[in-house]
Amino acid sequence: MLQLLNKKVLQPFHKTAKQIRNFRNEIQLSKDRYHIKRGSFATVADSDINHFAKILPNPNQILLGLDETAGYNRDYFKYVRGLGEVVLKPRTSAQVSAILQHCNHRKLAVSVYGGNTGVCGGSIPVFDEIVLSLELMNGIESIDEYSGVLQCEAGCILGVLEEKLSEKGMIMPLDLGSKHSCQIGGNLATNAGGIRLMRYGNLHGSVLGLEAVTADGTVLDLMSRFRKDNTGYHLKHLFIGSEGTLGVITRVAIACPPSPTTQNVLFLGVENYDSVLRTFIECKKRLGEILTSCELIDEDALQCCILHLKRSSPIKQYPFYMLIETTGSNADHDEQKVQNFLEQVLSAGIVGDGVVTNEPSKVKDLWQLREYIPHGTFSNNFCLTYDLSLPLDNFYDIVPAMKRRVGHLVKLVCGFGHIGDSNIHLNIAGDELTPEIEQLVDPFVYEFTSKLKGSVSAEHGIGLLKPKYLKYSKTNEAIGLMRQMKTTMDPNGILNPYKVISM
Amino acid sequence: MLQLLNKKVLQPFHKTAKQIRNFRNEIQLSKDRYHIKRGSFATVADSDINHFAKILPNPNQILLGLDETAGYNRDYFKYVRGLGEVVLKPRTSAQVSAILQHCNHRKLAVSVYGGNTGVCGGSIPVFDEIVLSLELMNGIESIDEYSGVLQCEAGCILGVLEEKLSEKGMIMPLDLGSKHSCQIGGNLATNAGGIRLMRYGNLHGSVLGLEAVTADGTVLDLMSRFRKDNTGYHLKHLFIGSEGTLGVITRVAIACPPSPTTQNVLFLGVENYDSVLRTFIECKKRLGEILTSCELIDEDALQCCILHLKRSSPIKQYPFYMLIETTGSNADHDEQKVQNFLEQVLSAGIVGDGVVTNEPSKVKDLWQLREYIPHGTFSNNFCLTYDLSLPLDNFYDIVPAMKRRVGHLVKLVCGFGHIGDSNIHLNIAGDELTPEIEQLVDPFVYEFTSKLKGSVSAEHGIGLLKPKYLKYSKTNEAIGLMRQMKTTMDPNGILNPYKVISM
Repeated sequence: MLQLLNKKVLQPFHKTAKQIRNFRNEIQLSKDRYHIKRGSFATVADSDINHFAKILPNPNQILLGLDETAGYNRDYFKYVRGLGEVVLKPRTSAQVSAILQHCNHRKLAVSVYGGNTGVCGGSIPVFDEIVLSLELMNGIESIDEYSGVLQCEAGCILGVLEEKLSEKGMIMPLDLGSKHSCQIGGNLATNAGGIRLMRYGNLHGSVLGLEAVTADGTVLDLMSRFRKDNTGYHLKHLFIGSEGTLGVITRVAIACPPSPTTQNVLFLGVENYDSVLRTFIECKKRLGEILTSCELIDEDALQCCILHLKRSSPIKQYPFYMLIETTGSNADHDEQKVQNFLEQVLSAGIVGDGVVTNEPSKVKDLWQLREYIPHGTFSNNFCLTYDLSLPLDNFYDIVPAMKRRVGHLVKLVCGFGHIGDSNIHLNIAGDELTPEIEQLVDPFVYEFTSKLKGSVSAEHGIGLLKPKYLKYSKTNEAIGLMRQMKTTMDPNGILNPYKVISM
Repeated sequence: MLQLLNKKVLQPFHKTAKQIRNFRNEIQLSKDRYHIKRGSFATVADSDINHFAKILPNPNQILLGLDETAGYNRDYFKYVRGLGEVVLKPRTSAQVSAILQHCNHRKLAVSVYGGNTGVCGGSIPVFDEIVLSLELMNGIESIDEYSGVLQCEAGCILGVLEEKLSEKGMIMPLDLGSKHSCQIGGNLATNAGGIRLMRYGNLHGSVLGLEAVTADGTVLDLMSRFRKDNTGYHLKHLFIGSEGTLGVITRVAIACPPSPTTQNVLFLGVENYDSVLRTFIECKKRLGEILTSCELIDEDALQCCILHLKRSSPIKQYPFYMLIETTGSNADHDEQKVQNFLEQVLSAGIVGDGVVTNEPSKVKDLWQLREYIPHGTFSNNFCLTYDLSLPLDNFYDIVPAMKRRVGHLVKLVCGFGHIGDSNIHLNIAGDELTPEIEQLVDPFVYEFTSKLKGSVSAEHGIGLLKPKYLKYSKTNEAIGLMRQMKTTMDPNGILNPYKVISM
């Protein structure tokens, strides 16, 4: 999938009405850009609006007309633009239920809208779908200090939850760059990953329960505050990662770890990929239970980042850099473990040089060298970016392979990502995206990944942009069962049409 | 649900043919004991056997007649006995596929058989279902030291996997008392819990991929070696915990942690339940990332266990005991954390007394005080046992409540379990199980649990014995969706009929 980014991609999200009008002129409609044909859904009539007004009594719960709904019709990355003229903002699961019951009866398509931080166009309507925004369902129901369980509504902002938990000595099991705008319901719907995944696992493990409203308005109460509940099929997982196509997540119960009290970050220079792997093995062994993140950055990715940040590298130039984080509960113990690890990898010659810190400001500086790489790569006129899971033996092979194919045609081919989770981000950037480059890049990346039985979308999901690439990571039989699930649970196909799976 | 156990429950599993005949005379058939009506399935004909013989070329892959199949027709706990006269032992997924394709076409019911260590009668036929045993599919495909991923066939014994992993410095993310006979496919099918769950999470988190054959013989390749794969619906979770009713798990990929190198076990005496909770909070805080297990044992449970083991308690009598385990990567660090914790809880007066050890033989001795409680309670003429998830605020309330109801009619009411996972085992034992006791116990436990929105089967599952209790932990809407899943994926209902969900 091509993710074309132009120079203005990192503009602030909120704009004036005039800017929005300009913006709408700038961005091609998704239906045209991606050649999508409208499904055979009904169109919204005045009688529907009157019905919705009965369900949602407060006038601020309904927005009408493209001027009012413009913000809900395009994404941050300018990949998609839709034409949804009706935005509904329920406050309760009962209201979500009543809305969907009506839409299903009338065969009105619905686009489910969370924090709009996705990168695959999953939360934006394509045609005139009704936008169902969860933003007003943002209540925290309970935080249990004994069991570590948080229960809340789906529209809660991740960063707000993190803040409330910190008051009680707990953290969320996931952390994302978009935490100040993404919503926990959207996190679940997209099975969001992030930089704590290596330590705390993914959402299928930490989500204890959820409530979802299915296409016909049925409220499915699958809430649970328990890690163990073997009573029947484990249905909640159908909703985690299905991007709103099987139901609308309305409430969440999630297991939250105690806050760590210590943090160390190491930034290491490594001569070759073989030594990267050996360093990874050593850090798993010697840092053991305090290891939280292990990231890989190649020299071109770092170069791009420090140019953008206008900073210099903390260590001299190496082909590879690794950023390793530990968190724990005893500063002395952690420091000793970190020092032992460093002495080992330096004396064995598998790490060339490195710095380590536990000072919060310096920790932040080091993390910026990883987090701002996308800002650097996106500062080119175009940047194609891929989010792949690949086996560690062949993890980095795709970067030199891509350099051989298009290195002479572009300014940058680089790789970086979560080596601890086998997840690499491949970026190809330059001045002008020509058909020649597109043809050399696009099928190749997916075929390369598919041959290694990797994932063509490790954490970003499928959304509107990637359904046609599903086949590279899933068999026909699996896609067939997905279709069966969709048909069983949403026979009219009203929930997030055109997304995830082509019907 | 009543789990009636007589004195002979802990006899060894393997018996002579004569013993088996006696045994069959002893145990009532499940169909009579639980008043089950046979489904409208076909019966096995000679032509079916001939067909199976073509699929399974080796004569040892087919057992015929009740004498040969007796061992596959009853469980260890004597809850269930069936009449399956055909046992099939495929060696490949293709053979599983061919068998199911034929059975589905012919409407022959199938009972999926793993290690037969379940406690809810899920793996034993009820009538004449064909027994599909995975025991010959026990190959280990790969163990990747870099990523920590094990790939193997579903019939691998858990203990064998643990052994093979230990050679490479890794462990399985789950540990069970039955590890020397249970199979990894059965572990997944029942979403097995065990004593490492608090540290490493449940199987929905650690299973990376699986292969399953559905009722019509479709081989669903959902294998993945990656923690991150957001390409479409996360179908593998449908098979984890559905007890073989939606498909037969044939292959597994699972994330395995590095072996810890240190272990400490504490055994503490605590005066009241409030102090138990405070101790739990302290151990989460002070033991942090090295905490692996936190178990609760009440004084009656311990008493019962030490009588059975013919041993004395390591500390004087208290109303509650806690067994806490840590595992880590640095012995000195762990010892310091453990000492800090102990000093804190003793000086604050929330723990009365305690012992701690890191010597393997003493670690084993202390763990026996927890692990042998069931053997002690089952040494009574009858023992009713319940496996509940309950909120920690009310975690222990059910024990005194039950004492008030039946204390005068029985010898023992006790509670113990995984407080770290909010999972309590309630036991009621005595000389004679009267209808009066049954009536005082049975609806009460489920209603009590349901009112607190707990789980009526935390880790044991539903199997044959508990479908009618599903309603206490799941709503009508959820059960309705389970039925839809079953109907969609197994329209003839051939897979494990009578189990999990009544159709």
